[in-house]
Amino acid sequence: MEAKRPLILISNDDGYSAKGLNELIKFLHPLAELVVVAPEGARSGSGCAITTTIPVHYSLIKKDIGLSIYKCSGTPTDCIKLSLHTILEGRRPDLIVSGINHGDNSGTNVHYSGTMGVAIEGCLNSIPSIGFSIHSHNPNADFEYTELYIQDITKAILKNGLPPQTCLNVNFPNSSQLKGIKVCEQANGYWTQEWEPCPRKGNENYYWLAGEFVVTNPENDNTDNWALKNDYVAITPIHVDMTAHHFIDELKSWF
Amino acid sequence: MEAKRPLILISNDDGYSAKGLNELIKFLHPLAELVVVAPEGARSGSGCAITTTIPVHYSLIKKDIGLSIYKCSGTPTDCIKLSLHTILEGRRPDLIVSGINHGDNSGTNVHYSGTMGVAIEGCLNSIPSIGFSIHSHNPNADFEYTELYIQDITKAILKNGLPPQTCLNVNFPNSSQLKGIKVCEQANGYWTQEWEPCPRKGNENYYWLAGEFVVTNPENDNTDNWALKNDYVAITPIHVDMTAHHFIDELKSWF
Repeated sequence: MEAKRPLILISNDDGYSAKGLNELIKFLHPLAELVVVAPEGARSGSGCAITTTIPVHYSLIKKDIGLSIYKCSGTPTDCIKLSLHTILEGRRPDLIVSGINHGDNSGTNVHYSGTMGVAIEGCLNSIPSIGFSIHSHNPNADFEYTELYIQDITKAILKNGLPPQTCLNVNFPNSSQLKGIKVCEQANGYWTQEWEPCPRKGNENYYWLAGEFVVTNPENDNTDNWALKNDYVAITPIHVDMTAHHFIDELKSWF
Repeated sequence: MEAKRPLILISNDDGYSAKGLNELIKFLHPLAELVVVAPEGARSGSGCAITTTIPVHYSLIKKDIGLSIYKCSGTPTDCIKLSLHTILEGRRPDLIVSGINHGDNSGTNVHYSGTMGVAIEGCLNSIPSIGFSIHSHNPNADFEYTELYIQDITKAILKNGLPPQTCLNVNFPNSSQLKGIKVCEQANGYWTQEWEPCPRKGNENYYWLAGEFVVTNPENDNTDNWALKNDYVAITPIHVDMTAHHFIDELKSWF
């Protein structure tokens, strides 16, 4: 008897029509039954945001054998919460996968990333979860060279699971000359030159978010940022317990 | 000669007119020069979200001796980014303080919290940062009993600073019978029963976000959630490096 196919819940933050999402569906369809619940439009930079001031709604876009696609008015995190509560009708996914994001989410950008918001939400619900991103903002980026890596990583997590409170942040360089996988630490860094003026009717106080990311530990060859720059696929395991355990004893001495 | 007064940048996620923000201003004004840059309306559940699809603008609401208040169309994180880029005219705050949030941000709720989004953004910019929240959603909550604690914690951080990549998540119980400060770990938990139907013209797929938070380690008396339930002021140090260091070696063996 054939083993039951696993169920993978997919979302992203670029919206249901993004190329990265549709490539991900193509790559994972051979491995599992897929339910896709993705935002109806762009939600880049959503982090783990949830929608608290207006109702959220969803609708079915497409239903095929082993593949259902829904769009949702909310954030990436809302998509996962709504799937687990109602869309999946009580079925529990074996895995939650997000992406493939147009733009990398290495380093401290994990905090702003809606792609990783999906994976963190899965993780908080004790479901193994992965976010995939590529270091290119081109809406027509070439994703072909990521296929075998994405399938291998997905198979490994379907087989092994992930430890409690842990999910994966996987970033691909924009290069077809990949050197392999490197398990990494989150690079440390910050954004600078972040706003471009967008004056409106003489009011100078309008701005577009922009900016450059500065890595503060570029010499550290264990980081995801270093791996990307050197053509490795960067896998950074992410821990949703953010407690600064190393600081607890000192902090206790202050109060 | 009198020492120069420190500069504190303040924001929140409930908007510039929230009582919690105005109480915080009152409590901190004796200690420092204050610049307040807060969202123009409610932004609960913003996490570390940034605004990427529309321009963001700000305007001055009030200018007094030692106190300027601005409102901003963006998220709490946008408020901090815009302050550091332009509103503060190149001055670097000695401290960034967020809150006082109407609703606690203990446990894994740190990921959804716009209050903590402010503190995390300050921390990513290497500025000591604190988020204050109270375990009450009442818009007219009584904040009086938090005043001395907030002043003491603020003074301690102005004096000692904070370690790199570390900020503070401070949560007050809704009780005037406080037993003191407890330095804590983040409680582990998840939300359940999260959506309330809000049908529209016969379409059943509209929902309001709601829900109950379930703590999965309620017996652990080191967590912020336990501290709140037992009338302690919970201080949880938060680390913005989310790398799951304990899992790196095992993950390497898989690929």
